[in-house]
Amino acid sequence: MLLLIMVQMIDSFRGSTYHTCMIKAGIIGATGYAGEEIVRLLTGHPEVEIKYLSSRTYQGEPFTDIFSQFNTLLSDRCVSMDIAEMADSCDVIFLALPHGLTFSQVTEDILLKTVIIDLGADFRLKNEDVYEKWYGVKHTNTKILKQAVYGLCELNRIEIAASRLIANPGCYTTCSILSLAPLLAEKRINPSSIIIDAKSGISGAGRSLSRGVHYAECNESVKAYKAASHRHAPEIEQELSILAGEDVMLTFTPHLIPMNRGILTTSYASLKKSTSLDDLFYLYKNFYRNEHFVRILDPGKLPETRFVRSSNFIDIGFALDERLNRVIIVGAIDNLIKGAAGQAVQNMNILFGYPEEEGLTAIPAVL
Amino acid sequence: MLLLIMVQMIDSFRGSTYHTCMIKAGIIGATGYAGEEIVRLLTGHPEVEIKYLSSRTYQGEPFTDIFSQFNTLLSDRCVSMDIAEMADSCDVIFLALPHGLTFSQVTEDILLKTVIIDLGADFRLKNEDVYEKWYGVKHTNTKILKQAVYGLCELNRIEIAASRLIANPGCYTTCSILSLAPLLAEKRINPSSIIIDAKSGISGAGRSLSRGVHYAECNESVKAYKAASHRHAPEIEQELSILAGEDVMLTFTPHLIPMNRGILTTSYASLKKSTSLDDLFYLYKNFYRNEHFVRILDPGKLPETRFVRSSNFIDIGFALDERLNRVIIVGAIDNLIKGAAGQAVQNMNILFGYPEEEGLTAIPAVL
Amino acid sequence: MLLLIMVQMIDSFRGSTYHTCMIKAGIIGATGYAGEEIVRLLTGHPEVEIKYLSSRTYQGEPFTDIFSQFNTLLSDRCVSMDIAEMADSCDVIFLALPHGLTFSQVTEDILLKTVIIDLGADFRLKNEDVYEKWYGVKHTNTKILKQAVYGLCELNRIEIAASRLIANPGCYTTCSILSLAPLLAEKRINPSSIIIDAKSGISGAGRSLSRGVHYAECNESVKAYKAASHRHAPEIEQELSILAGEDVMLTFTPHLIPMNRGILTTSYASLKKSTSLDDLFYLYKNFYRNEHFVRILDPGKLPETRFVRSSNFIDIGFALDERLNRVIIVGAIDNLIKGAAGQAVQNMNILFGYPEEEGLTAIPAVL
Amino acid sequence: MLLLIMVQMIDSFRGSTYHTCMIKAGIIGATGYAGEEIVRLLTGHPEVEIKYLSSRTYQGEPFTDIFSQFNTLLSDRCVSMDIAEMADSCDVIFLALPHGLTFSQVTEDILLKTVIIDLGADFRLKNEDVYEKWYGVKHTNTKILKQAVYGLCELNRIEIAASRLIANPGCYTTCSILSLAPLLAEKRINPSSIIIDAKSGISGAGRSLSRGVHYAECNESVKAYKAASHRHAPEIEQELSILAGEDVMLTFTPHLIPMNRGILTTSYASLKKSTSLDDLFYLYKNFYRNEHFVRILDPGKLPETRFVRSSNFIDIGFALDERLNRVIIVGAIDNLIKGAAGQAVQNMNILFGYPEEEGLTAIPAVL
Repeated sequence: MLLLIMVQMIDSFRGSTYHTCMIKAGIIGATGYAGEEIVRLLTGHPEVEIKYLSSRTYQGEPFTDIFSQFNTLLSDRCVSMDIAEMADSCDVIFLALPHGLTFSQVTEDILLKTVIIDLGADFRLKNEDVYEKWYGVKHTNTKILKQAVYGLCELNRIEIAASRLIANPGCYTTCSILSLAPLLAEKRINPSSIIIDAKSGISGAGRSLSRGVHYAECNESVKAYKAASHRHAPEIEQELSILAGEDVMLTFTPHLIPMNRGILTTSYASLKKSTSLDDLFYLYKNFYRNEHFVRILDPGKLPETRFVRSSNFIDIGFALDERLNRVIIVGAIDNLIKGAAGQAVQNMNILFGYPEEEGLTAIPAVL
Repeated sequence: MLLLIMVQMIDSFRGSTYHTCMIKAGIIGATGYAGEEIVRLLTGHPEVEIKYLSSRTYQGEPFTDIFSQFNTLLSDRCVSMDIAEMADSCDVIFLALPHGLTFSQVTEDILLKTVIIDLGADFRLKNEDVYEKWYGVKHTNTKILKQAVYGLCELNRIEIAASRLIANPGCYTTCSILSLAPLLAEKRINPSSIIIDAKSGISGAGRSLSRGVHYAECNESVKAYKAASHRHAPEIEQELSILAGEDVMLTFTPHLIPMNRGILTTSYASLKKSTSLDDLFYLYKNFYRNEHFVRILDPGKLPETRFVRSSNFIDIGFALDERLNRVIIVGAIDNLIKGAAGQAVQNMNILFGYPEEEGLTAIPAVL
Repeated sequence: MLLLIMVQMIDSFRGSTYHTCMIKAGIIGATGYAGEEIVRLLTGHPEVEIKYLSSRTYQGEPFTDIFSQFNTLLSDRCVSMDIAEMADSCDVIFLALPHGLTFSQVTEDILLKTVIIDLGADFRLKNEDVYEKWYGVKHTNTKILKQAVYGLCELNRIEIAASRLIANPGCYTTCSILSLAPLLAEKRINPSSIIIDAKSGISGAGRSLSRGVHYAECNESVKAYKAASHRHAPEIEQELSILAGEDVMLTFTPHLIPMNRGILTTSYASLKKSTSLDDLFYLYKNFYRNEHFVRILDPGKLPETRFVRSSNFIDIGFALDERLNRVIIVGAIDNLIKGAAGQAVQNMNILFGYPEEEGLTAIPAVL
Repeated sequence: MLLLIMVQMIDSFRGSTYHTCMIKAGIIGATGYAGEEIVRLLTGHPEVEIKYLSSRTYQGEPFTDIFSQFNTLLSDRCVSMDIAEMADSCDVIFLALPHGLTFSQVTEDILLKTVIIDLGADFRLKNEDVYEKWYGVKHTNTKILKQAVYGLCELNRIEIAASRLIANPGCYTTCSILSLAPLLAEKRINPSSIIIDAKSGISGAGRSLSRGVHYAECNESVKAYKAASHRHAPEIEQELSILAGEDVMLTFTPHLIPMNRGILTTSYASLKKSTSLDDLFYLYKNFYRNEHFVRILDPGKLPETRFVRSSNFIDIGFALDERLNRVIIVGAIDNLIKGAAGQAVQNMNILFGYPEEEGLTAIPAVL
């Protein structure tokens, strides 16, 4: 309760400070897909001014040379990464870097001066041994790691508001956790029975060139990859374990789908006791009753990724296999928005006391 | 044993009769996608002559007006459906009709004159009550139903050879059954634990116009549909139950993928005891040791639908979730070839004593 | 000059009336793709309230049942078309109907009460004989036709502002005219030499089901259609003739491209005298110097449809074939935005005295 | 006439020699897309045995590790390029290398031992200055260049049969030349009026990784590139000049289309005198009357790339713009087959006296 009051105080303080002027934002890793989407969203955010776009690869080049969609709209050049300098003049820094590059950058000094929203993996896993096991790198900044809050807005809103370092969740993770949270929180399913079969558009593989996302090598084809060995699995387990109040281990298999954007997760679990679609519907509706970005579909309907495209929504629907007392939960997000940049902006809104929808009001562009 | 000899006699008899002249084939429902693919495959088959192309919709029109790819290669016009007349002059009739339209057509009289390979659903389910439950139509030809053989070539080759009525399996079905058969036959998995998450290209929805497959309504999107209520589920269960020697019930969820061709099934099951990838590899390799069209991928590799495109192959790979003692089996086929027309031709080859690869030697067209 | 003052008076009057309350808008044909995009754009427009969504096909159904992307964001049901009733309570009515259905609807009475923005073809061609020739329907409302203004915002802004009936241009038309306007206005090219080779995404074919846009019949393929016989040709010729001050006849060939959105026009013309890329660049830059939505690319760069996706921009670039003294102009728009709904909203902004960008500030969603 | 007899003698000699045993073939550059398609076609060719698959990048690796579609069908490993060694044991060598790498490889010595079919650009342009101008590399092997025959089978069949070095045409080139040849040979069009607007699937950009063909950077978009500066233009001009009996200069603009395979060329030209569609139809039909791979569509029909996919056909259709006395010719090929590997095999068949269709009988795979 005290925490809540403090949070509200901080919020109102922040509000009063920042509403009159604009939030100054820096983006490190601005020329990846997530980085570009943050730039796009912030450009449309009424309360934010972009101060720095940083890119290792394109240092010195106009941002519009890399992303021509910003032609005539943005005149910034990419700068080199100097997080200390940025921290002096930015209220918030978004980090969108490959894992292993971030944890050395974020110091206590930096966090005294600015707020960090990290879209990478370095601060997501609370246990540094788990991090080392899955990422093959020793975590060298466990002190700062302890300060990080897992930025899944709908579940951790209060902690986020009070934090200076947000670990923005992975794309598969966001969709998986939000799809399963009500069932685990309400102890309706057997945790060891969970299987998540996930499907991602190809932008999820990032902007770096590689054989697997060369057009003619992935167009008109579907494949599974990293079955039971993808790095988002421990992240999903960590957060679902907290919700369930017990250790959750699950099987996670991602697939690559020939489309630009979108993630669909199809999750399977055994019900502790039989239920109805209506009952599940009300369970979810109630769990997410105050959530603007979570849309529970009417019983009998299942999501399609196009209905959330370019938006920060997650659509959730379900089916029952009554013969086997199994529930099937289908979630859909835009991997680059709710799965990355949109959630990062939502986290920023929480941190600075703005309405969570600010800058995220785009209606899904279904075509 | 006696059956085997009889089969071989029939085969050799058929061989001696037909090898000198060509098999005469009729196709009913030639202007659907499966029908068109049968025409394409038979046109390239060295031992077959197409006598009739029948279409309800395009009666009287040149086949090349509907499928311009056959321009200059085929001069036939579509005829109306007269199965009795066809039976008089055809050695084999392929039926590619919607369910409910076939069972009244196939009579004992017809079967005395010709061999039927039915790509529809009317003779796949051995139990007419199960048929009625899933298809909502009462089966009115249960006598003939008893004569039908389920035409999954790799599993039922001998019965196929001795039959006059082949129920060609569904597309999802073929991929699912062949992916799981070795594990169930060898009692390695718990049957009630099976979950099949299937992904199909859009040609699987057929050639009839509908909102869901209007280009802009399915391109750049993925969705689940008919979760736990798709009609291929009872077909998979029927055949896997035979293999397992016990009743198999499973959860089956199909998805629609924005690509023309291909099915990928990702199947999950609990292992009775822990095993290794190598062990699974040898189990599958041995089970399918004589099968030209089944390719077991090296341990650690997973299939992609593009690697079987336009071919009659199924590629199978697997992964283990050792923490949960769960196996993940991934199968890939071309839904129109091994999942429909190709398997129909393979069945024809078995019936007439030809090498199974005849007319099916196309190397996958990966692009 | 007087006209301009009148326009500004009307504008300021309109402005003073409407800025305090919201514009009330009705959309007829709201469940086609253009209609849906108008709804999407108006929902995000700060000064507009949607009063009616009308649909012949879906009368009585919730709009979100047809377009699930609006789930939780819009509660309207589709109503039948009663333009007279709408006119009483709407400040503006958008018509998005097939040709031939509109001209009987728009009466003087209606135009006294409300402003009409017609996205169909019925008021685009000023000569009713040309209309009849290309559309095969006799125009029965030539009196009203005379009042219509061709709503290509960048060229006819002033007339638009003073009108009550706007004929919103076609998609191919907008891209073609804006690409060629400076060259014709400045008499740089030989009008009879113009060839426009246009490429459109498949949403351009509309939402009605048809064989040609059934997914598997157009995916992974490109074709030309209606070469030298497409109905947008006379519309392009009409407007370019006005600009050129002489009759322009040209060859127009559209193509269908396997993608949802976007139009690219590649136009060819013979230069009256040789020139340089830089010269052309400044010609275009100058001609469109005050236009927010027209982006002239730097010499040597050519547009891609993705860089304007979901936005109201047109990108224009050029190349020279110096050996043949020919200029190649490439234009790119989003066919549903600048080619339909976006331009309609831009027209509304002009009519009601708002900044033209209002509600159209979306940055192109490149992925 | 003498030449013809000699050719026939050579052919019959070759026939008698090689029909009893198999042609031994080597492929250099086997792991590009054109190389892979040659391997695929030759594997299905009844008279060819592949001896060498050479790859600079994948030397020592099993070919199936790179192209899993050949799994179980091909056991070769990639070898390094040793053209001299290959020449000793191969009857034909296919070269599929980037320009500039080939001309130094092909010596008189090599050509005494084997026949070369070069899919690259080094021997296509007869004039070494033109080569240097467009490719920026000095041609260092002009002596051998003089021996090369331009391998557009339908036009140069006799010279091909008598040659030892075939310059296999480019993909855009093949489609453009065959589309325009009858009109120029019959002097029906004004050569200086020709404009070719070409559209290619993305496999045309090759297998090397690059930003422009990274999936999410080209999917759902269309663009023009190298307008009036693409290297296939001089090749088209060279061959059309020969046909026209006068110098032909034309404007050529290629576009990239989001699909794997296929080229569509839309060519425009001014007619010397007015004509009818029927007249054009008979002109083309007659010009290509003996050509299996050239399909002239009925008047009023236009080609689609899907109808030639995976086949060696070119489909040609036309339209007239009678008002401007302009003809529009649309051609469609599979860029990897008739535009590369298929034509290379067709050239091999001509060289060795086989029916031209041998190994090229695949019916287009429309889906």
